[in-house]
Amino acid sequence: MINGDLAGLLTAVAEAVGLQEGESGVERVLRAIRELEPASTKAVSRHVGLPLPVIAAINNELRTRGVVTTNRPSRLTDAGRTLLESLPIDLSAAATCQSCDGHSVEIPADFDPVLERLALIMESAPGVDLTLDQSFATVETKVRRVLLLMRYGLLPSRAALCVGDDDLMAVAIAAVGAAIDRPLVQRLAVVDISPEILEYTRSCLAELGVTAELVEHDLREPLPEPLRKGFDLALTDPPYTTEGAGLFLSRAVEALVPGPGRSVVFSFGPKGPANTLQVQRVITELGLTVQAMHRNFNEYLGAGIIAGVSHLQYLSTTAETAPLVEGAHAGPLYTADQRSAAREYVCNGCATRYAVGRDAEWPTIAALKEAGCAQCGGDRFRPLQLIRDK
Amino acid sequence: MINGDLAGLLTAVAEAVGLQEGESGVERVLRAIRELEPASTKAVSRHVGLPLPVIAAINNELRTRGVVTTNRPSRLTDAGRTLLESLPIDLSAAATCQSCDGHSVEIPADFDPVLERLALIMESAPGVDLTLDQSFATVETKVRRVLLLMRYGLLPSRAALCVGDDDLMAVAIAAVGAAIDRPLVQRLAVVDISPEILEYTRSCLAELGVTAELVEHDLREPLPEPLRKGFDLALTDPPYTTEGAGLFLSRAVEALVPGPGRSVVFSFGPKGPANTLQVQRVITELGLTVQAMHRNFNEYLGAGIIAGVSHLQYLSTTAETAPLVEGAHAGPLYTADQRSAAREYVCNGCATRYAVGRDAEWPTIAALKEAGCAQCGGDRFRPLQLIRDK
Repeated sequence: MINGDLAGLLTAVAEAVGLQEGESGVERVLRAIRELEPASTKAVSRHVGLPLPVIAAINNELRTRGVVTTNRPSRLTDAGRTLLESLPIDLSAAATCQSCDGHSVEIPADFDPVLERLALIMESAPGVDLTLDQSFATVETKVRRVLLLMRYGLLPSRAALCVGDDDLMAVAIAAVGAAIDRPLVQRLAVVDISPEILEYTRSCLAELGVTAELVEHDLREPLPEPLRKGFDLALTDPPYTTEGAGLFLSRAVEALVPGPGRSVVFSFGPKGPANTLQVQRVITELGLTVQAMHRNFNEYLGAGIIAGVSHLQYLSTTAETAPLVEGAHAGPLYTADQRSAAREYVCNGCATRYAVGRDAEWPTIAALKEAGCAQCGGDRFRPLQLIRDK
Repeated sequence: MINGDLAGLLTAVAEAVGLQEGESGVERVLRAIRELEPASTKAVSRHVGLPLPVIAAINNELRTRGVVTTNRPSRLTDAGRTLLESLPIDLSAAATCQSCDGHSVEIPADFDPVLERLALIMESAPGVDLTLDQSFATVETKVRRVLLLMRYGLLPSRAALCVGDDDLMAVAIAAVGAAIDRPLVQRLAVVDISPEILEYTRSCLAELGVTAELVEHDLREPLPEPLRKGFDLALTDPPYTTEGAGLFLSRAVEALVPGPGRSVVFSFGPKGPANTLQVQRVITELGLTVQAMHRNFNEYLGAGIIAGVSHLQYLSTTAETAPLVEGAHAGPLYTADQRSAAREYVCNGCATRYAVGRDAEWPTIAALKEAGCAQCGGDRFRPLQLIRDK
């Protein structure tokens, strides 16, 4: 049952969920549901750029208030539709370029063999380690990233470093280079904590006839000397926290030839306004300028809280650029490190674990059930032990 | 005649021009000339995103050193081509989406009448006042902006304000709305210093059957009370200085409903790394987050120093958003205010005036001649009086 008017609903839901984005955030969600219905939580999350748990919590409130149907995926109830009549229609699908889906680069039709090759490579790749905030970008995302770097003249490059590469971007760059018969990087290097990923990268690159420096290293520690100050381009898709962004960007900066005009390609998921501003402050304090920012450029397979998308930023160095973190990093880094007084839940279907609690990725078990398991889609979970306090 | 190797050339030219972007900037220019040749100064400027006077000065140095031909538009000499062999090929044109030219929105074919209507409107519009850093965005840019706002769900909007509107964006929004038979803004307002522009906007909107609040006001002064805290969206294409950006963005923020999730669409031309970082600091200090940044999105007719392009940023408010400038602004604002000890030159062909001097938009008369007059293309200029010191 709906009480009060639209403005009252927006306020009540924003307050019930504790939404940083406030009433305008709830409004965007309602508009997205109307645009997309039947609207899965994931589709709404991608559309409005809010994390999956937030959308799930809002959906839950809207359901309680009779604005959306109890069955899923979400639809507006008749009462909800009436209430929304004064809200402007969403025209985004009609306005977006159909050829490139708004990404500004289009995968050429004759790239099918590259996509197939990378798909095979991903099938045999080492599994994702969720505790390290890993998730795999789709094959299309990897190829589009390479094209975007070409578009901005960052590839071909004399020297490029992947700062963490569970995404196998080094392999994607080599595969596209092979497809267009042009080596895209003269000096290619990867630094990663995982020996499995490095070994797999080595074997994939060997098949493509590409050699690279593959360095096993924990990025909490400063870069090894041979990787410092030698690259024109660094790519990173860091752990999903402000600390993770600051640390990996600092390491990226360490790797670059000093001086202006070097480039960092930085992928990072949508955060609430306060966290987004914090990361922007970090970027600015690093003396990096935002040359381009592509919303929802990266799509991931089964990535939980970011609803499978993240933004891609092309950053450029200035004369003021310097790392923020110079020594070792000891504080929290991964999303899991930031949970306090949370309880772990495990999916009955596939045993994937989720932290649920006030400061955890999932504020309530209702929100997690609403969204469903990121891996298998199941909506049944059982509680495990409390996660240690920090 | 070329002395030394490529690295030596890059260093020498970067030093001779005093290029903030350093050697990597010179390299990008050389790669662009090779990609585009015959390459006009303007085309190179757009391609690499450096101001026209900078490209002209680099071209001049490259000519002196025998790397590019003396006739124009620039081509590499044979010696130059040999020297550049080790530089990676530029693949940007091949990678960019052909349908939308990388803009992520495509003007539908059935929008021809809108483009024609806006072209007619622009033909009769009040002339550009260069001392106010005005220049007209092309008709295609205006329409693409409206589409981009639709793509991001910022249009349709309940309440939108144009903070300065020599570009007639209010008219463009109304024209697109008429074409798709959907009012795009419920409350539309324009604040501008020019009574001519406001009167012209009024008459154009009247023909389109749209009413708007049109307020004559010098944005150096705080917004009039009726325009404060009432809008969801503000559009601005401010004077081309850090002060101009900070002031107009502050006024935009004043206009928005307080709280997170309100939007500012901010167009600003490419600057050197130091200035770009400064503007980014201003954005961050305003508590605004960069939701999207489209390089070279805006194209202008006959805009001098920015080579006819600027970037478009979609900014979003947070709980921390507040204006940086609250009272009246007394300092420098427009590009012309920032020139010291410069001399004015006037084009022999069309009498357009240019400031030439160390801190002026044109560092040397050679650079101005190299680029040619932004209005008529002429390359003959005569000196006028010295511009007053600040």
